[in-house]
Amino acid sequence: MTLATAVHAPRPGLMLLEDALVQLLGAAAPVAGTELVSTFDADGRVLAQDVVSALDVPGHDNTSMDGYAVRVTDLETAAGDALPVSQRIPAGHFGADLQPGTVARVFTGAPIPAGADAVVMQEEAEPTGETDGQPLVRFKTVPKLGQWIRRQGEDVRCGAVVLPHGTRLGPAELGLAASIGFASLTVTRRVRVALFSTGDELVMPGDVPPQQMPPGAIYNSNRFFLRALLQRLGCEVSDLGIVPDQREATVAALREAAVAHDLILTSGGVSVGEEDHIKPAVQHLGSLDLWQIGMKPGKPFAHGWVTSEGAGGRCHFVGLPGNPVSSWVTFLLLVRPFVRRLQGVHAPDAAGLPKPQRGVAHFALPKGDKRREFLRVRRNADGGLDLFPNQSSGVLTSVAWGDGLVDNPPGRAIAYGDEVDYLSFDSLLS
Amino acid sequence: MTLATAVHAPRPGLMLLEDALVQLLGAAAPVAGTELVSTFDADGRVLAQDVVSALDVPGHDNTSMDGYAVRVTDLETAAGDALPVSQRIPAGHFGADLQPGTVARVFTGAPIPAGADAVVMQEEAEPTGETDGQPLVRFKTVPKLGQWIRRQGEDVRCGAVVLPHGTRLGPAELGLAASIGFASLTVTRRVRVALFSTGDELVMPGDVPPQQMPPGAIYNSNRFFLRALLQRLGCEVSDLGIVPDQREATVAALREAAVAHDLILTSGGVSVGEEDHIKPAVQHLGSLDLWQIGMKPGKPFAHGWVTSEGAGGRCHFVGLPGNPVSSWVTFLLLVRPFVRRLQGVHAPDAAGLPKPQRGVAHFALPKGDKRREFLRVRRNADGGLDLFPNQSSGVLTSVAWGDGLVDNPPGRAIAYGDEVDYLSFDSLLS
Repeated sequence: MTLATAVHAPRPGLMLLEDALVQLLGAAAPVAGTELVSTFDADGRVLAQDVVSALDVPGHDNTSMDGYAVRVTDLETAAGDALPVSQRIPAGHFGADLQPGTVARVFTGAPIPAGADAVVMQEEAEPTGETDGQPLVRFKTVPKLGQWIRRQGEDVRCGAVVLPHGTRLGPAELGLAASIGFASLTVTRRVRVALFSTGDELVMPGDVPPQQMPPGAIYNSNRFFLRALLQRLGCEVSDLGIVPDQREATVAALREAAVAHDLILTSGGVSVGEEDHIKPAVQHLGSLDLWQIGMKPGKPFAHGWVTSEGAGGRCHFVGLPGNPVSSWVTFLLLVRPFVRRLQGVHAPDAAGLPKPQRGVAHFALPKGDKRREFLRVRRNADGGLDLFPNQSSGVLTSVAWGDGLVDNPPGRAIAYGDEVDYLSFDSLLS
Repeated sequence: MTLATAVHAPRPGLMLLEDALVQLLGAAAPVAGTELVSTFDADGRVLAQDVVSALDVPGHDNTSMDGYAVRVTDLETAAGDALPVSQRIPAGHFGADLQPGTVARVFTGAPIPAGADAVVMQEEAEPTGETDGQPLVRFKTVPKLGQWIRRQGEDVRCGAVVLPHGTRLGPAELGLAASIGFASLTVTRRVRVALFSTGDELVMPGDVPPQQMPPGAIYNSNRFFLRALLQRLGCEVSDLGIVPDQREATVAALREAAVAHDLILTSGGVSVGEEDHIKPAVQHLGSLDLWQIGMKPGKPFAHGWVTSEGAGGRCHFVGLPGNPVSSWVTFLLLVRPFVRRLQGVHAPDAAGLPKPQRGVAHFALPKGDKRREFLRVRRNADGGLDLFPNQSSGVLTSVAWGDGLVDNPPGRAIAYGDEVDYLSFDSLLS
């Protein structure tokens, strides 16, 4: 749907959120360019290589307990007699072949000496003096063959793809890459996002004290959370500030931003109101699709292109609604998967909405909205979901209070105790 | 329980995880010291002030739709007649009092002019020419009193504590603070953590290629994920590297670390094996409690104090088990709440284990472990939980593959379809 259609159709049909997501992701291609970073610094980055193991983990059969490496047959025939400890093998050291009729003292992680076929935990062994300078130990049990032995390659096989291309790296992935010897990793370069807000009513916190706020003015809050959300996704953010509600200033800001960025993200200026200069400015510099999405909050949403001067490239434009909660919800449900696509993330849920969890409503919603609604809720001590009483999209109190969203279909009333679809902010912010 | 008790008792009773957490948190006091940071840079920090609103939000009654501000009685009496548009009020501008018998064109966020008592959406209005230079508009409906008007103070009241002391700040909280004019926030200073690993078998990735790893050597992976986890929690991390398995080197490393840190975190060296030099070194410099916690993975865990030279202060010591998965699980369940306590976080769940979610096992565990077990699982497309087949604590494959833990009580067998307690990594990493 183009802007023209949207504006001329008197009551345009609303677009399904899923369709908007498909169109948006269809327009996104992973950015070109990779860099080699230290594994220490790769948290949040996206792999541009397969991480393939060049070794078996463990590298050798080793003990998973502090104790004694033994031959099971020796313990079967010894029948409670003490056996001499012929060697002592700490982790990181290799022992000699185990002499028949003797045992080896071993510590967690130590290689199993050739000839041994099980480990007895030290709690099941009892030192009983010594013979010929060797300590003697008596065992309370006969172990099963292979007991407490971690086998070579049991955890990772040499040649295995341990982390595939397109994996978003978190602490566990960094640890795993390190465990097979990767000190650095090839990742996609950071996605560059230019962020700005539009609206004459916006004032930056700090510029004017609350007591002196002019009538009708509001503090800009969207920039603060959008910047933090983008940074958590691993983007490089340029904050271009508030652009005045003027056509020329808007064109200039967009033109400048398009040069060195992959995405220009704005909030405000994409509704059908006459006071918006974003739409004609983006159209002047490229193209724009303006969507009315069947969701609440968050109906107006725009995607387009801004052609950059000189370089001849083009830059994505995404326009979010200006209301903070609308901006928050559309960011999490649409911009996050879009950015992940730009980053080259391959994940089972990368192409769609996140999988909801089951939740139980500890509230009632007597009348569902005409649109699919994302209600701000919080899990309570009884395992149910409480609803924030004021679902206004004007301020972020509901979002800061809440820990997630209930995804409620159009027109559905909710009774206390009903099962609902719940999306946690934790999962949407990760 | 002191180290001495733990070592001398032949088979010490295992400690409950909850008891370990209570003891650990009981030893932690919030660090002293605050700093003023830009709200832009406060993601992940912890509030050391109440954030109190000095204004109402919205500051004035305003429209939540693009449309027309009207007097309801005018539309009731006009009965379908067109009314003149006497003024035009964009967001951020104040209009004049609304003349009876006229309407005002308003745009989302614009203040409602005195005299108006409802807003009609523009979709329900029809321009029909003009009179005396004023546009005329006809309305399809008569609005309810107050329709589409957001009331002054509806979202935030002047004087309200919007974010209390002890709140951990995320993107939504930054946006909310900004929306009431806070350009900077007083937060607790960062918790300073010194991180090191012990063990002769450890090799840093990059120092030795996989093909040349000596027998028994393993790559150090714990440092990588522990550092990332600490940084995600907002800590300042000093990485002191691998300390050799020698008493003097260990004492020197601890002594140095205690000077400028709140917490020394190590992995490895806290089991009851003889090869550990951490325990006597910490005892030499302060005190140490060594716990055997009834959990799998993750049994050995230590908390103590290291007295720093000169300054006369003391620094927490926490020793994690050396196995990567044990280290991971004890970090999330014990160190994370401990660090949050040091940071001064007040939260409903700050003093205990996180609230589990309900999950459904799409696997069977024929025999539960004697210890409470934290199984690595992943949610599947059918909404169930799959179990990683290799639950060895040796490498992080299960953690990287999984998206959470099933908290399984001691001895409990799990049948396919059983309801289980599930802890998502998202919630534990946030």
